[in-house]
Amino acid sequence: MKDQKRIRYSKYIDKITTAEMAATFIQPKDVLGVSGFTKAGDSKTVLPCVAQRGYKENLQLTVISGASLGYDTDADLAKSGALLKRLPFQADPTLRKSIDTHQLFYVDQHLGQTAEILQNLQTKIDVAIIEAVAITKEGYIVPTTSVGNSATFTEMAEKIIIEINTSFPENLEGIHDIKLQKPQPNREIIPITQSSDRIGTPYIKIDPHKVAAIVFTKVPDAPARIASPDANTQAIAKHILNFLENEVALGRLTPSLLPLQAGIGKTANAILSGFVHSNFENLTMYSEVLQDSTFELFDAGKLKFASASSITVSEECFEKVFTNFEKYKDKLVLRPQNISNSPEVIRRLGIIGINTAIEFDIYGNVNSTHITGTKMMNGIGGSGDFARNGYLSVFVCPSISKNDTISHIVPMVSHTDHTEHDVDVLVTEQGLADLRGLAPRERAKLIIENCAHPIYKSELKTYFERASKFGGQTPHLLEEALSWHQRLKLHGTMKKVKQQVASH
Amino acid sequence: MKDQKRIRYSKYIDKITTAEMAATFIQPKDVLGVSGFTKAGDSKTVLPCVAQRGYKENLQLTVISGASLGYDTDADLAKSGALLKRLPFQADPTLRKSIDTHQLFYVDQHLGQTAEILQNLQTKIDVAIIEAVAITKEGYIVPTTSVGNSATFTEMAEKIIIEINTSFPENLEGIHDIKLQKPQPNREIIPITQSSDRIGTPYIKIDPHKVAAIVFTKVPDAPARIASPDANTQAIAKHILNFLENEVALGRLTPSLLPLQAGIGKTANAILSGFVHSNFENLTMYSEVLQDSTFELFDAGKLKFASASSITVSEECFEKVFTNFEKYKDKLVLRPQNISNSPEVIRRLGIIGINTAIEFDIYGNVNSTHITGTKMMNGIGGSGDFARNGYLSVFVCPSISKNDTISHIVPMVSHTDHTEHDVDVLVTEQGLADLRGLAPRERAKLIIENCAHPIYKSELKTYFERASKFGGQTPHLLEEALSWHQRLKLHGTMKKVKQQVASH
Ligand SMILES: CC(C)(COP(=O)(O)OP(=O)(O)OC[C@H]1O[C@@H](n2cnc3c(N)ncnc32)[C@H](O)[C@@H]1OP(=O)(O)O)[C@@H](O)C(=O)NCCC(=O)NCCS
Ligand SMILES: CC(C)(COP(=O)(O)OP(=O)(O)OC[C@H]1O[C@@H](n2cnc3c(N)ncnc32)[C@H](O)[C@@H]1OP(=O)(O)O)[C@@H](O)C(=O)NCCC(=O)NCCS
Repeated sequence: MKDQKRIRYSKYIDKITTAEMAATFIQPKDVLGVSGFTKAGDSKTVLPCVAQRGYKENLQLTVISGASLGYDTDADLAKSGALLKRLPFQADPTLRKSIDTHQLFYVDQHLGQTAEILQNLQTKIDVAIIEAVAITKEGYIVPTTSVGNSATFTEMAEKIIIEINTSFPENLEGIHDIKLQKPQPNREIIPITQSSDRIGTPYIKIDPHKVAAIVFTKVPDAPARIASPDANTQAIAKHILNFLENEVALGRLTPSLLPLQAGIGKTANAILSGFVHSNFENLTMYSEVLQDSTFELFDAGKLKFASASSITVSEECFEKVFTNFEKYKDKLVLRPQNISNSPEVIRRLGIIGINTAIEFDIYGNVNSTHITGTKMMNGIGGSGDFARNGYLSVFVCPSISKNDTISHIVPMVSHTDHTEHDVDVLVTEQGLADLRGLAPRERAKLIIENCAHPIYKSELKTYFERASKFGGQTPHLLEEALSWHQRLKLHGTMKKVKQQVASH
Repeated sequence: MKDQKRIRYSKYIDKITTAEMAATFIQPKDVLGVSGFTKAGDSKTVLPCVAQRGYKENLQLTVISGASLGYDTDADLAKSGALLKRLPFQADPTLRKSIDTHQLFYVDQHLGQTAEILQNLQTKIDVAIIEAVAITKEGYIVPTTSVGNSATFTEMAEKIIIEINTSFPENLEGIHDIKLQKPQPNREIIPITQSSDRIGTPYIKIDPHKVAAIVFTKVPDAPARIASPDANTQAIAKHILNFLENEVALGRLTPSLLPLQAGIGKTANAILSGFVHSNFENLTMYSEVLQDSTFELFDAGKLKFASASSITVSEECFEKVFTNFEKYKDKLVLRPQNISNSPEVIRRLGIIGINTAIEFDIYGNVNSTHITGTKMMNGIGGSGDFARNGYLSVFVCPSISKNDTISHIVPMVSHTDHTEHDVDVLVTEQGLADLRGLAPRERAKLIIENCAHPIYKSELKTYFERASKFGGQTPHLLEEALSWHQRLKLHGTMKKVKQQVASH
């Protein structure tokens, strides 16, 4: 069998089995550590079979991944009732609903910290399920399009199930750089001083005795569905590019800027695409995820190197990149997420982090996770790793949405993921507010003036002025601070409706 | 003059002048960078003279320090109207009042980030005012009891005023370890792998041409006033010690634990004192500030080494330490605050950070700065540097205060400084909640059960249960989430009073 050539360690040959069989190795209350980061490099067959078992059996699994999974895996895990707990990130509408209706517990963590917490708590991982493009002759795992927490999982797991995915070309081997962090007090320096530095091995070293099953699959990564840039995202991109050009003009940055990190989704993608026609050059990325725009920038000769923990691209882009992989290979590295998101490296390299907010408030606090303070969207992801420790932390979102009923600039955020201390620059299609060195009251004026939509601007101003009469470092009217969200919940709009005004 | 011997660089001799004269070098709209960190090592005469000028002239100064200043310096700067802006930390009741009544702008920053932000913005510092214990023969500054941001200030300043304080013994020289961080992309590895590692020089290298004036003073540091441990702080200390002992028993930590960081104030001091009679040994500290308890631990033979950015002790402790300094000297190092609070070092060493909260909520969000969401207490200080990047982040506070009118556990914090993602352990005198790996709804149960005071417990439970009926990852009733703070403002108590219940 041709596929078996991907296993260069003969002792594994008798471990080859079907996904269904492999799935039976999982006990009903197991803690699973699974590969996968923003749809890339996840288990395409074994974990879905586990989810299917959930429809027939009473499973209470804890599923820990790198980040979100592809296809319907998270949806099926949720729908089948297989989950007791899910961490550290998800982005699935069905799972989201199960979370919000209390079918399971969801622990939303800084993506750079999951491995730390597992290690600190010496969590027992029963089974690791890891996608591989090949097995080395020592029996080690060559991952596919993501690294995530896989090295930590295999290190801590009792059993390992390997899923070899032949839809990826074998020459993917070589782009990974794996290095486990020793627990403190023996933690070593992470000697990365440029995004292209390599410090580890191109495979995940494992104990071959732990391998319980090996499965083959041909299912490709679920493709990223990235909406094309629209007027809003293009306006946001333009504001950011102008701002960065001005920083270069002021002599604060060079035309190569500093390594870029960009969140996932259409806005981040549009911003990065904007760099294609900019004056910046020799750019680098030190990010979590690489999207289509990374490869556009390579093709345009703008980008020198990109480091991340996963590659999540559209079908088109996948085709382009992987049929011509030698063109990109020496410009890419995929790392464990506690290294791609390491505070040490992020501060040292001076990352410019650009992430999307759900909403922000007039003082610069950002909500990245909770709709009207209670319902989970996706999770904080790596945004906090980059925002706290980077050189520049930029958050973007549209000023309004859903037919003007939502203002994404509010008096007080309904949930805080990034505090006023961590947010340097806020951007909407209306404009950009550079908050560095400003006090809360200075920020409020700038945010309302530059970022708010005209239809909500005067109400935000009025709130700020009325609150300011009572003084305080951060003026608020506690009884009204969350009233915009209350209106949205009650009346479907943040706009003040006539009756409400009357009843006040 | 005997004091002049402290200046080993003869070219400075003709710069010697009085504090009043030196203060005239400051222009009305200058940006000042001043030494001083939690009352230690601040300017005792020049900056106070500048403050006095404020009573007669129209000054609009920006004063940037390490952290809080001693005596009435901040109060006079505020009262005299000399300030346009103050950063990154303060702890003075008069200044606080001026902040809250909008007499000036206060920028409350992560203490590890001020130097970063100044450098990134290439802020022009007009004058640096730095306390010294001596001047080296090259004209370099040997700081006193704090390092703070002094090295960054002297590097960026146009002029430098040095205040030589002869109240400190000259053998203070040698405990400092100064190393400036180069701007990115040339930032280097910080090669500290143990709290005792030294990476720089025992003096602040400056350009002697910048020195505009040298002044002598004998005024000692304003002493720390630390209330002795009481039943509450002792109970909190006991919970933490039990928790850490259990971690050792579980094999997660050794009896030397990991380097400790403790916030300032009586609670932190009581907790550290608690280690004196514990089974822990060979402890180390990698902190911001060293208080009396650090020296108690040295005396008890429990502590091997302590690294920080300042030493802030009581008069008694000062006497003990500085009349017998050789006993402690090789166990101490004082560093710039962007190294004492560096994300790189904090993560690598795996700091156990223990800080005090103003309040926390049932989901584990912490407010460290704002009274009822609007009024400034002190500032976030270094708590965020340690909480985000350390091994373990512990926040403590009493469960109630002011005659039971305040519950420090609330449905929703009125301001968020540390998000649910950054808080591992919460402690009140009632008990301890270990939140690691828990989802918000699991945390709520534990926090209410273990930390809340019995008189507020059932109301917190009821809130959580009522909110939970509406679902959500983080259940809240938006219209009531901040009502406890509203009651406190309106009625002087968070307790539900009869009339209120009726009107609901
Ligand atoms: C914040 C985030 C959800 C935005 O992503 P996006 O693709 O731009 O968001 P969407 O346009 O899908 O908006 C999310 C939904 O929430 C809704 N929404 C946003 N703000 C809202 C608000 N204040 N009130 C109610 N609904 C709101 C939107 O209208 C949209 O609803 P829809 O799905 O019904 O259209 C996403 O970036 C995220 O999860 N970020 C956190 C993680 C992170 O930053 N990772 C960084 C490294 S990858
Ligand atoms: C949080 C902090 C103020 C607590 O310090 P402390 O000495 O234990 O606090 P105090 O007992 O003086 O309490 C502060 C005051 O606020 C009041 N207060 C606290 N919570 C309150 C609340 N929810 N509502 C109203 N008032 C409140 C207290 O009653 C007290 O009032 P008083 O001065 O009139 O007595 C202090 O630790 C701090 O500033 N922390 C942030 C900085 C930091 O963590 N640095 C870490 C490294 S140094």
